[in-house]
Amino acid sequence: MVYWQVVMSLDGFIAGAGDDMSWIFDIVDAEAAVGDDHVAATGAIVMGRRTWEVEDRDRPGIYGGRFQGPLFVVTRHPPEPAPAWMREGGMQGRFVREGVATAIAHAKEAAGGRNVGLLGAGVARQAIELALLDEILVGVSPVLLGDGVRLFDRHGAAPVRLEAGRVAQQGALTNLSFRVL
Amino acid sequence: MVYWQVVMSLDGFIAGAGDDMSWIFDIVDAEAAVGDDHVAATGAIVMGRRTWEVEDRDRPGIYGGRFQGPLFVVTRHPPEPAPAWMREGGMQGRFVREGVATAIAHAKEAAGGRNVGLLGAGVARQAIELALLDEILVGVSPVLLGDGVRLFDRHGAAPVRLEAGRVAQQGALTNLSFRVL
Repeated sequence: MVYWQVVMSLDGFIAGAGDDMSWIFDIVDAEAAVGDDHVAATGAIVMGRRTWEVEDRDRPGIYGGRFQGPLFVVTRHPPEPAPAWMREGGMQGRFVREGVATAIAHAKEAAGGRNVGLLGAGVARQAIELALLDEILVGVSPVLLGDGVRLFDRHGAAPVRLEAGRVAQQGALTNLSFRVL
Repeated sequence: MVYWQVVMSLDGFIAGAGDDMSWIFDIVDAEAAVGDDHVAATGAIVMGRRTWEVEDRDRPGIYGGRFQGPLFVVTRHPPEPAPAWMREGGMQGRFVREGVATAIAHAKEAAGGRNVGLLGAGVARQAIELALLDEILVGVSPVLLGDGVRLFDRHGAAPVRLEAGRVAQQGALTNLSFRVL
């Protein structure tokens, strides 16, 4: 199963203007939005270059460092050298130049039957367009931002239908799950 | 209590491009998102001109015609003559030229102790800025639109903090309530 876990403001932003994430850390522990059981069920991660840059800048380590395993970063321009945190503690970080579909294929193989997690709106949008995303797990943060990086930014295409699943409140977050139809 | 009830896509749009609402009616009965008890507790409605135009064009009648009572439409350019449905069955429709604060003041007086409901993102945004909105009731529709009219469109201002309240699933909708702090 390929899933996308993301925290957003009520008005649909996953980051403020300029990729600012401070609003989120002020209000909720975004890492805590992903439970330990969820981390344990994740066999590999695919993330985009932009998300990776924010991660690399702000707080290296996936899910607060709890995820250790194969990590695939989609980018046409891999940084040289790869940062140390991508190699430490079994991270097995790797850059993929061939795009999202290839990265997800690698990740599925590496996950050994466990789930593949996506990080980053761009990667998730492409996965949806390629019909490779199964579930969206959204933690709704109790805030209105008004501006920033949108959950799903796409023009002129048909709506993507979902099916609502579980709902749970966890601290300040309201966690919603949706199956992509 | 002043509340804003609204149905949005998971990615934070309350209408598609060009104010298209067909996606919403295809998926959920948006009128049914507002329960009869909720309608009964509403003493007056304030809406913006743009929302009023969509209402007037697509499906005259507030909450599917279940609301009968004082209706205040904020606009600097009232249409002449006012359409018939605003006068029928006790609708008491009225246009307000003096802005959102005045319209809400009129509505509170007219509501006789019951709640005041807002319709329209522009009116709601102004009410939030004026610290006149108490609650946001959001029905999350299981769809990603990618483009359209945003729930809360504002640039360069501080985040608006909320407090999460009740969560309920009603048909395809996931209803969330938030108190404005």
